[in-house]
Amino acid sequence: MKRSERLIAMTNYLIEHPHQLVSLPFFTDVYDSAKSSISEDLGIINERFQKEGIGRLQTVPGAAGGVKYIPLNSKEKSESFVDELANKLEDPDRLLPGGYLFMSDLLGDPQTVRNIGRLFATHFAEHSIDVVVTVATKGIPLAYAVASFLNVPVVIVRRDPKVTEGSTVSINYVSGSSRKIQTMVLPKRSFSQGTNVLIIDDFMKAGGTINGMKSLLDEFEANVAGIGVLAEAEDEEEERVVDDYVSLLQISNVDIKNKKIDVHRGNLFQG
Amino acid sequence: MKRSERLIAMTNYLIEHPHQLVSLPFFTDVYDSAKSSISEDLGIINERFQKEGIGRLQTVPGAAGGVKYIPLNSKEKSESFVDELANKLEDPDRLLPGGYLFMSDLLGDPQTVRNIGRLFATHFAEHSIDVVVTVATKGIPLAYAVASFLNVPVVIVRRDPKVTEGSTVSINYVSGSSRKIQTMVLPKRSFSQGTNVLIIDDFMKAGGTINGMKSLLDEFEANVAGIGVLAEAEDEEEERVVDDYVSLLQISNVDIKNKKIDVHRGNLFQG
Repeated sequence: MKRSERLIAMTNYLIEHPHQLVSLPFFTDVYDSAKSSISEDLGIINERFQKEGIGRLQTVPGAAGGVKYIPLNSKEKSESFVDELANKLEDPDRLLPGGYLFMSDLLGDPQTVRNIGRLFATHFAEHSIDVVVTVATKGIPLAYAVASFLNVPVVIVRRDPKVTEGSTVSINYVSGSSRKIQTMVLPKRSFSQGTNVLIIDDFMKAGGTINGMKSLLDEFEANVAGIGVLAEAEDEEEERVVDDYVSLLQISNVDIKNKKIDVHRGNLFQG
Repeated sequence: MKRSERLIAMTNYLIEHPHQLVSLPFFTDVYDSAKSSISEDLGIINERFQKEGIGRLQTVPGAAGGVKYIPLNSKEKSESFVDELANKLEDPDRLLPGGYLFMSDLLGDPQTVRNIGRLFATHFAEHSIDVVVTVATKGIPLAYAVASFLNVPVVIVRRDPKVTEGSTVSINYVSGSSRKIQTMVLPKRSFSQGTNVLIIDDFMKAGGTINGMKSLLDEFEANVAGIGVLAEAEDEEEERVVDDYVSLLQISNVDIKNKKIDVHRGNLFQG
């Protein structure tokens, strides 16, 4: 196969298989080319990916080695994306009772969701995540987007058990915003002990829901390796119960009376 | 920029922007190259994409023209993927009460979900879909996967209204399997009249849920342009109430007593 054709095919293959070790013999077989040509191709691709700000190829040496595509957003790409998102969210028409923000339209756009996933995957690229966990329903698209870039499975915590889940483990927790006792449920065989879990959710106020997920994961002796929320907002009634998280956006100065709101970059961009 | 570098960058750009018209001047500007070079690049990419069985570039002529990447799975790719999936699902340990099948592990794998999305997007590539609709919660990842390949937004029908949705329209319907009256809810400003909707869901027995979605969409005077379900199974108690759908998998001969089940290709592969 010609170099030009190989570059197209390999670029597609690598993009479709992020965080996955691909052996050089795989490429030499599939594209019927010499190892030296493939190595050279990978060098060109690696350099271009970095210049495009979409990630890099990591070389794993040795007999069981190969290359891995690590999707990484450049700082400029991440910042301009988040600033644009903040701009859209600052529209006062989005204000809902209780200081919530209408975001369904933005979370309904697959491109936006994939960009959010790419951003979290960049941040957690080196955290050895085994699985992404979210709670139904708004966090689901975000969790899949992150997981598809990290190449790990998704497990969904439910509010109610379903027949299609088999036997389940459940806990009760106090929701920060409604102050009601709520239930969370996970299928019994969701994780083995010591699994490294990344929690992803769309919105956090006091953090009651995320705290609930942490308690549920404790029941499985899973390890919370990271927490990522799209947007965090202050809760006037309750102090935050979660502190080790990253947010893409921070919502502040919510003034329902005067229809004003501030949305800016979250703590992922600080320091 | 050199051809080799352009091919990598353009391949990435096109894959990340399916079903989106990209003008030639965009490419000549970004990659600082002559129109003739870009045209030649696109020819090479188009040919390679088709040979890889991942889709093709559609050329739109005229001043407002350009190219569009249409993701299309080759028949062989689709069939081998679905046969593998059927194989995994035929495991009798997956049988659940009521003739349901445990699929959470497969639907938790982002690669599998993206492949399912690619398959539906191939089938509905020419159907002028404006939006993908699903019902919470199992259909959500599939809906996003399809929508990301078709480059259209997702709207999620809920079982219960949420404060973060604003005002809503709701209908009641009879579920085929539980024969209970259930509710479905959509935000009031979800669609404008005449919107072409693709309904996506994970599982269909009698089709009560999908029929409910159709009734709800009628309230918005939206047009159901297609229905896709991952798996369909016979319902012994009720006749099917939906007929104009495509399925990737058909489940039959469910024998809970003897722990047997047949899973084969769905009607999308017939005729």
